[in-house]
Amino acid sequence: MSENEHQMFQDHQQHTAVSTAADFGVGARVTLAVMADDFAEVITRALRETDSTGLELQSDSVSTFVRGDEQRICDYLCGLIATVGRTGRHASASVLLSRGCPGEVCRVIDELPLVSPPVLALTGIPVIAQWALYPLSDGATAERSADHMRDITAVIDDARARRTFLRGDHFVTTLSGDLAEVIATVAAGWVDVGRHVQHVTTHATISINSPTADRP
Amino acid sequence: MSENEHQMFQDHQQHTAVSTAADFGVGARVTLAVMADDFAEVITRALRETDSTGLELQSDSVSTFVRGDEQRICDYLCGLIATVGRTGRHASASVLLSRGCPGEVCRVIDELPLVSPPVLALTGIPVIAQWALYPLSDGATAERSADHMRDITAVIDDARARRTFLRGDHFVTTLSGDLAEVIATVAAGWVDVGRHVQHVTTHATISINSPTADRP
Repeated sequence: MSENEHQMFQDHQQHTAVSTAADFGVGARVTLAVMADDFAEVITRALRETDSTGLELQSDSVSTFVRGDEQRICDYLCGLIATVGRTGRHASASVLLSRGCPGEVCRVIDELPLVSPPVLALTGIPVIAQWALYPLSDGATAERSADHMRDITAVIDDARARRTFLRGDHFVTTLSGDLAEVIATVAAGWVDVGRHVQHVTTHATISINSPTADRP
Repeated sequence: MSENEHQMFQDHQQHTAVSTAADFGVGARVTLAVMADDFAEVITRALRETDSTGLELQSDSVSTFVRGDEQRICDYLCGLIATVGRTGRHASASVLLSRGCPGEVCRVIDELPLVSPPVLALTGIPVIAQWALYPLSDGATAERSADHMRDITAVIDDARARRTFLRGDHFVTTLSGDLAEVIATVAAGWVDVGRHVQHVTTHATISINSPTADRP
């Protein structure tokens, strides 16, 4: 393949990944809040430097929207937050992942995609995060009763197995570990429940370089 | 009533409001992220100065947990975020409201409480927020089918009627207006859907004094 053909092939693959994600409503929003006077410079640099191959991005004054496949979304979030973390600034990242409600109309999709939990390389950045997962099932199917707490309990068990579970709190589970392990835990719950519930969202507030992190 | 008796009466009322909220799992978590070098001072002062009468509060390194009745929770969130807003610092507040899942076990409660939407005095602080509401119904009841998108559409219509609706975005509704109007919109959706769905949560990321707010 010539260099030109290779580029066309890559462009096509990227376009396909984004369209597939759009068809199933797979995406994220992230708000980076950097607690320093130079917040604008730190955030702008992180957005500029993080590899966004295979993704569609759109920033507004509250958050950045990210569309693409689950692995690339998580690579991006991890890279973006790690770039901020390496500045040493205290920061908070609010992450929302959503799947199964394309165009915000939630038409019923017959066959739910089976997606593997994203795998992320360690960053060396320890974080604490508070996490909630929402399986938005409207009722039982032939194969399965609707029980959002059963699904939530299963993902918390998975967090325990991954050793990112720190404690249960009101309304959230508090996770701790390397940034990559924490994002991988959140994403695994989201894709795993997405195997039998179409519309699943999850929210995590991730705290980096916290001056009070010694007493979580 | 003597001053002492009056105090005892107030303590009793406060205790009752907090127990009632605990019984139904009504509460909030808020993360304040102040984008300035003096973030710790600004956050600590806001937490110290905001009237917490009638509430149980607990802060950890990621967020502050707030328990009490819906009106007092919203008064508190509005007061807390307004105090930060008045410093002129750019800040982001991540707010989670939850109801109907006490002790994180979601035992079925026969009669759902009918709560009026909280009413808040204007603050003079304009904000932009991104908002999502999650009705966690596990199925139809005798009176009503389960349809989380119907419930979400109804609350977005309410935001339009309140003139806080700015635009629909992927996964969220973007609101703008006075901080009080925005929190009142978020809370109204939460308590209104809570009249027929037991477990309802809502998340809002509220941006204050944004340098890019001219182009939301």
